Amino acid sequence: MPLVELFVSERRSPTERRRLADAVHQALVRTVSIPENDRFQLVRTLATEDAFIDPTYLGVERTPNFVVVRITLRRGRTDAVKRALYQAVASGAAEAAGARPEDVLVVLVENDAIDWSFGAGVAQYVPQP
Amino acid sequence: MPLVELFVSERRSPTERRRLADAVHQALVRTVSIPENDRFQLVRTLATEDAFIDPTYLGVERTPNFVVVRITLRRGRTDAVKRALYQAVASGAAEAAGARPEDVLVVLVENDAIDWSFGAGVAQYVPQP
Amino acid sequence: MPLVELFVSERRSPTERRRLADAVHQALVRTVSIPENDRFQLVRTLATEDAFIDPTYLGVERTPNFVVVRITLRRGRTDAVKRALYQAVASGAAEAAGARPEDVLVVLVENDAIDWSFGAGVAQYVPQP
Repeated sequence: MPLVELFVSERRSPTERRRLADAVHQALVRTVSIPENDRFQLVRTLATEDAFIDPTYLGVERTPNFVVVRITLRRGRTDAVKRALYQAVASGAAEAAGARPEDVLVVLVENDAIDWSFGAGVAQYVPQP
Repeated sequence: MPLVELFVSERRSPTERRRLADAVHQALVRTVSIPENDRFQLVRTLATEDAFIDPTYLGVERTPNFVVVRITLRRGRTDAVKRALYQAVASGAAEAAGARPEDVLVVLVENDAIDWSFGAGVAQYVPQP
Repeated sequence: MPLVELFVSERRSPTERRRLADAVHQALVRTVSIPENDRFQLVRTLATEDAFIDPTYLGVERTPNFVVVRITLRRGRTDAVKRALYQAVASGAAEAAGARPEDVLVVLVENDAIDWSFGAGVAQYVPQP
């Protein structure tokens, strides 16, 4: 269910992008408990001139080699689960693709079960009554 | 009002993209009852290597020729309207551009009337008191 | 905190894009009162064929030289603050980059404090209890 968008520097190779996407997915599987095959991810590369990422906000030192992850998911994860997700995404991105954990931003946007159609024109999460 | 984003394979030609965008718009007009000229759509093409779309999640068989549609719209549509929208988007995309209905994913994100400015610095949906 | 996305015509030069991004940021600083260094912006350019922006919806005359601004931010800004933001974004974009105020659309999507990680795997806005 989550729709995951990754925004990364165009310096990152296709291999690095795949590794980052893999790492974000594994973080979701382990912390948010989504099924292994519930994977829907879109990656976008940006030129340096099209990304404005503050290098020190909140005391975190960031480089131009940022990884912004926006995750649209169903409402209802606890704060503890979200914290675990952030930790898993940052450490996973570091292990899988050499990203600095400080460079990994995550933003969540929540919606509801009825807000998803996984194909064939059906709202699979809310079966027709 | 809806802000519609289409994410499609780069294999799709400009003509196919326009037909898909047309089909999504007509689906919104017919099911969500937006005005014919309330059309704001942004299309993005992705290389195969930058889209991770599970081929079987929830028993729906998907190909690499995916169509992901994210629609940001005002809160308040009923479940029945959303179901009708999904059906209309999937069947419209199939008729207009030969998409397989199984390849058409739709994700809704809701906000409120005050969250929209359609130009000129004004919140048109909530007139100044 | 806000995650700002700008969608602009590919006709806009890198310099114009930077000026637009600067203008949106200054509008947020002045009206939403975010810190000066709370800046996270992603810009995307679109070919004319990939943007469908109605030229007259709600009586606002738009050209193909659109600027769509989507801002993801924490819940809780008043209607008055949002109105001031729209006005500041439209006038700032006009002053900084010669955009027509009528061409500047703004869409807000709200989430919560726990929905943000600004790096290092931590939910900075909701310190661990």
